[in-house]
Amino acid sequence: MIVSALLTSVGINLGLCVLFIAIYSILRKQPWNVKVYAPRSIVEGKAQNDDDISLERFLPSTGWLVSAWSPSEDEFLAIAGLDAVVFMRIFILCFKVFLVAGIIGMFVIVPVNYRGDQIEQFNLFNITNQSLDKFSISNLNDGSNWLWVHFAAAYVITAVVCYLLYSEYKYIASKRLEYFDRSGRNPHEFTILVRSIPTYDGRSLSATVNRFFTELHPSLYMDHLVVRRTNKLQDLMNGAKDIYKKISNLKSREHSTEISVSSYDRISEDPEEKLWIEKTGISMSGKEVSAAFVCFRSRYAMTEVVRIRQSIDPTQWIIEQAPEPCDVYWPYFSTTFMGRWISKVLIILASIVLTIFFLIPVGFVQGLAHLEKLNELFPFLQNILSIPFVSQVVTGYLPSLILHTFLSMVPPVMKFFSTMEGYLSNNEIERSACTKMIWFTTWNIFFANVLSGTVVNQWNVILEPKNLPILLANAVPAQATFFISYVVTSGWTDISAELTRTSSLICDFLGRNCFRCCLREFTAPHIPYHRAIPSILFFGLIGITYFLLAPLILPFILVYFCLGYIIYRNQLLNVYCKKYETGGRFWPSVHNTLIFSLFLMQAIAFGIFTVKQLRLAYLLTIPLMFATYLFNEYCRKRFLPIFTAYSAESILKKDRREQNDPTMEIFFDNLMSNYRKYMVTEYCSENPDSRSSESTPLLSDHT
Amino acid sequence: MIVSALLTSVGINLGLCVLFIAIYSILRKQPWNVKVYAPRSIVEGKAQNDDDISLERFLPSTGWLVSAWSPSEDEFLAIAGLDAVVFMRIFILCFKVFLVAGIIGMFVIVPVNYRGDQIEQFNLFNITNQSLDKFSISNLNDGSNWLWVHFAAAYVITAVVCYLLYSEYKYIASKRLEYFDRSGRNPHEFTILVRSIPTYDGRSLSATVNRFFTELHPSLYMDHLVVRRTNKLQDLMNGAKDIYKKISNLKSREHSTEISVSSYDRISEDPEEKLWIEKTGISMSGKEVSAAFVCFRSRYAMTEVVRIRQSIDPTQWIIEQAPEPCDVYWPYFSTTFMGRWISKVLIILASIVLTIFFLIPVGFVQGLAHLEKLNELFPFLQNILSIPFVSQVVTGYLPSLILHTFLSMVPPVMKFFSTMEGYLSNNEIERSACTKMIWFTTWNIFFANVLSGTVVNQWNVILEPKNLPILLANAVPAQATFFISYVVTSGWTDISAELTRTSSLICDFLGRNCFRCCLREFTAPHIPYHRAIPSILFFGLIGITYFLLAPLILPFILVYFCLGYIIYRNQLLNVYCKKYETGGRFWPSVHNTLIFSLFLMQAIAFGIFTVKQLRLAYLLTIPLMFATYLFNEYCRKRFLPIFTAYSAESILKKDRREQNDPTMEIFFDNLMSNYRKYMVTEYCSENPDSRSSESTPLLSDHT
Repeated sequence: MIVSALLTSVGINLGLCVLFIAIYSILRKQPWNVKVYAPRSIVEGKAQNDDDISLERFLPSTGWLVSAWSPSEDEFLAIAGLDAVVFMRIFILCFKVFLVAGIIGMFVIVPVNYRGDQIEQFNLFNITNQSLDKFSISNLNDGSNWLWVHFAAAYVITAVVCYLLYSEYKYIASKRLEYFDRSGRNPHEFTILVRSIPTYDGRSLSATVNRFFTELHPSLYMDHLVVRRTNKLQDLMNGAKDIYKKISNLKSREHSTEISVSSYDRISEDPEEKLWIEKTGISMSGKEVSAAFVCFRSRYAMTEVVRIRQSIDPTQWIIEQAPEPCDVYWPYFSTTFMGRWISKVLIILASIVLTIFFLIPVGFVQGLAHLEKLNELFPFLQNILSIPFVSQVVTGYLPSLILHTFLSMVPPVMKFFSTMEGYLSNNEIERSACTKMIWFTTWNIFFANVLSGTVVNQWNVILEPKNLPILLANAVPAQATFFISYVVTSGWTDISAELTRTSSLICDFLGRNCFRCCLREFTAPHIPYHRAIPSILFFGLIGITYFLLAPLILPFILVYFCLGYIIYRNQLLNVYCKKYETGGRFWPSVHNTLIFSLFLMQAIAFGIFTVKQLRLAYLLTIPLMFATYLFNEYCRKRFLPIFTAYSAESILKKDRREQNDPTMEIFFDNLMSNYRKYMVTEYCSENPDSRSSESTPLLSDHT
Repeated sequence: MIVSALLTSVGINLGLCVLFIAIYSILRKQPWNVKVYAPRSIVEGKAQNDDDISLERFLPSTGWLVSAWSPSEDEFLAIAGLDAVVFMRIFILCFKVFLVAGIIGMFVIVPVNYRGDQIEQFNLFNITNQSLDKFSISNLNDGSNWLWVHFAAAYVITAVVCYLLYSEYKYIASKRLEYFDRSGRNPHEFTILVRSIPTYDGRSLSATVNRFFTELHPSLYMDHLVVRRTNKLQDLMNGAKDIYKKISNLKSREHSTEISVSSYDRISEDPEEKLWIEKTGISMSGKEVSAAFVCFRSRYAMTEVVRIRQSIDPTQWIIEQAPEPCDVYWPYFSTTFMGRWISKVLIILASIVLTIFFLIPVGFVQGLAHLEKLNELFPFLQNILSIPFVSQVVTGYLPSLILHTFLSMVPPVMKFFSTMEGYLSNNEIERSACTKMIWFTTWNIFFANVLSGTVVNQWNVILEPKNLPILLANAVPAQATFFISYVVTSGWTDISAELTRTSSLICDFLGRNCFRCCLREFTAPHIPYHRAIPSILFFGLIGITYFLLAPLILPFILVYFCLGYIIYRNQLLNVYCKKYETGGRFWPSVHNTLIFSLFLMQAIAFGIFTVKQLRLAYLLTIPLMFATYLFNEYCRKRFLPIFTAYSAESILKKDRREQNDPTMEIFFDNLMSNYRKYMVTEYCSENPDSRSSESTPLLSDHT
């Protein structure tokens, strides 16, 4: 890519950024856009209708910046939850990393690179393809002693990143513990989810569950709820039954009580369920599924049951901690142990296949980036492509845009894959999809672009891992301008587009004006972590790997993280509501990805020193890798357990504080009904009335 | 290797086998050899002195065979323990596998191979290097349809091995559960081992432990014992103190009580310890180490504490289930969390280095196997080597012997490595050493021989994994005769030598006749699982990988497993005492190794079909690999958890049976003293009197 094309790309995207931000600052002040730009305030009942028309309303302003910036972290935590705080810490961490990296890169590495004479003098009047390489490591001579500066920089940046990662992990772990301690009583802290319950002839599932836990833990076990679901046929039958009931209700209003009681009898024989039906009037129709929620007297008892395998046969009575009632993902309750396990294997295969075959469109995109190839493939376009502006757009902007369109289709697919794996909560699904997306992005954007840029369609060369560092060392610097262009296209513009929420804006506008459909229930959107986190971390990966090779990319990345910080802060305060709270369990993935970036940087450094024939330096890179590995292992031992489960100390402390609380009994009485409500509304029988009336207050229970 | 050399090797080793067995049957009848051939009977007090001299005593007999064969599995379990039963099941499983494999191999694959015409006709009068290859897969033409027989055989043997592995895993899991249920009260079932106890100023370790567990588990916690150790200086000081005490005791026998009480005061301030000292008269001198045994009221309580992380900081209060008192490995109690972890990483590195650099002597040995090379290297030996018998011995027998000598030095090194990893029980050390040895053996005997036979000193080619199947397919059949020779040398002869226990015999003879040292204490040896299991499994690996390529090896392997079964059964009944009981926890390694052998066989089949240009067959090998992987994953889910921990159901069942047992209180009172006794005798103060008096009865507690 030539420099002028890069400048075009940067120019276009900078313009788009400013435009998006300006448009947002105007649009957000229009009262009809409150559903798009401040859905939280509607959900929280704080929306004010400010209909006075003044000139100010139609001018860009910076008020939103101030209000996004001003809340302290504690205030932000109270408003948006711990997951959101942890999400924002990614930006803070990356900002710190790239501030240090940028200073070293621009003031130490760039001048050193410029001293070399491998590439001809930089000439402002003759901007060629080679020119930016003058500032990259390619400019240094083989065996040059100036390479020791890069070597020292690799050590320094590794130390800085590790120090920052350590303090961040420590900080978030302490926040997590504090959050658990302060979070009060939550139903899921007392509840487990049992699957693969064995069936016995002549005994109902409910009786089996009851008997099993009463026998094992007579003093700890409290209550249970067998999961039910409807199938298509039953849905239809229930619909017919409803209509019949309504008609008969209309016919004879005076003796309605008897009829409904008898209809409940037909549905269920369980005395508890009958009680529930009588209390709430919501029926639990549906087939029993071999899964149940079981609740215990204390958090510690729950942990005990989760941590110790209960059944002699490890394929039966599979137990995990229950998700929050609002976070349960219902559709996959009915799968068996074998079914779940085989689908998991198949999904892993499918993810690998998707990751590998996705390279084909990427290769096509990469082909477009070379103007000559385009001329070869479509000779009839030769005239159009020879126009300087068109050729610049085609080579500078189009490749990223097409790649980007393809990529935007992947997160939903990965999320769908994760749901198929048999996770039973939305947070696990999104965390799993997040990991898949991180691998996908790294492989398909970083590796595919780096490698296909030099050895098109020969991606299988990387099956020889020992050659990889040298391969990368040759290929990575050559793609520096592509990735600068990627940062401004996919980084800057995307994050500004996040602010204006264009698609939501259009949907809302169409909904209001053309279709006039007034949705009965309004829910604020939830931030798609599985889409946002991998893309943010990918910029960290690019930055760290290019730090040694072409530090010119670093200022662009620094701008990205600054923009991202303020924009996501604004969105989390005004737009996104939380669907669940994992207490920062996304962090270990973030940590691992940054460690992986460090390894990649070191592997490339190893390759560079090999190629540049600085023998001692490439040998001395190995201890650095080993030290990074040790650091990561230490963090795994020191912090990861905190993110997997809470300790007996924390749990017992919380339990004992509530031991003599008289309100506990009321809480226990309603414990199972929290899950029952969601099961009935979301899974068993589709009852829109109960959904709209119940979902909002329950959500706010956890905020 | 030429066929005549192979025949020499088989002949020599068959002779040695018969000789060893005959010698054994005579030697075992000599009463002075009872310490070598029946140490168990001495330990159990069943040794009879039968000194009448008759001719029968000096003639070979088969009586030992009958007595080794006759006990049923239940009787064997009662005598030798579950680990021994599980060990014998390896032979039974392998016998079943190679019976089926041998029948298919000899009656289907060998005739099919013989039909090919790649290798010249087998000629009995001209036994050349090529001749045995007539019966191997190398004889078949490229693209021959007869290769489909091999393809079907690969599927059949995979199915058979998987079925046998599954039923064996199931059987052993049930045995393990039964064993746990029947094993009665064992101190280690109620005890945990805590390490990395944080220190607080002004509070003793004992008080810290007491406070921590009393606070967390007031109703479950019972007692604790802080580990102490002496260092060299303290040893000397204690020695001096002992002498001083003895002198003062001799001087004034009348007021001995006061003196000893005051000396105990100087040693310890702990009231419990003083009580112990008063009761037993054994002092617990030594520095406190940041580790303690803590016991609980029930097995379930113990499991709970082990399974739930207790401390908020995951690097403190590290808890694991305590080993049996007699199984504790004391020297590494003093290492810190960081120290343990870094030594673990270093040991893994050291094991890898040992495994890789061991190739150098193996390469040398391999060099010897080629007579021409030997002539090149040592021209002065040319005359000697030209003698037919010498050349046959050198090429047929010497290579295996040298290799074997080198290899016999590895298990102690690997065991030493495992002790350095910071395991605190002998069984964990041996299990870890066993895994290391399996890797070591596979890499250094199988891969090194197979690959260096064709591409000497280029072992790094296997860094290209995608070429490995083809490489193996070319190299493995060529080494068939070497491995037949290896089976007879290292297999048959070793296992017969195991019977005669030559080194023990010589030691005992020298000890009795020359040095006249009468050891005050006699302990029966313990079977070195980390040495025996990997070598047995290696023959399984050879057999399974050669099944398709050169089935002529199978009868030799079948003989090995028959011999091994009867010999080890005899040794376990008469020679070895158990040092610990893991309840069959060695089995998962056995299972994994056999699965690995299957994968290797399939990879080689893939390579063979590629080389022989049978495209459809090599593509169809992939589903077989995938099915094997699925099978293994299923076994991991279905059986492995049973070998890692017992379920709540099993534990609570056992606990409840003893709930109202009045003898429990006495058991609890003596619980900690089990560990105290071993700590004092083996770790704290070297007191030979107490050791000899305590160790034997305690060992028999668990037999």
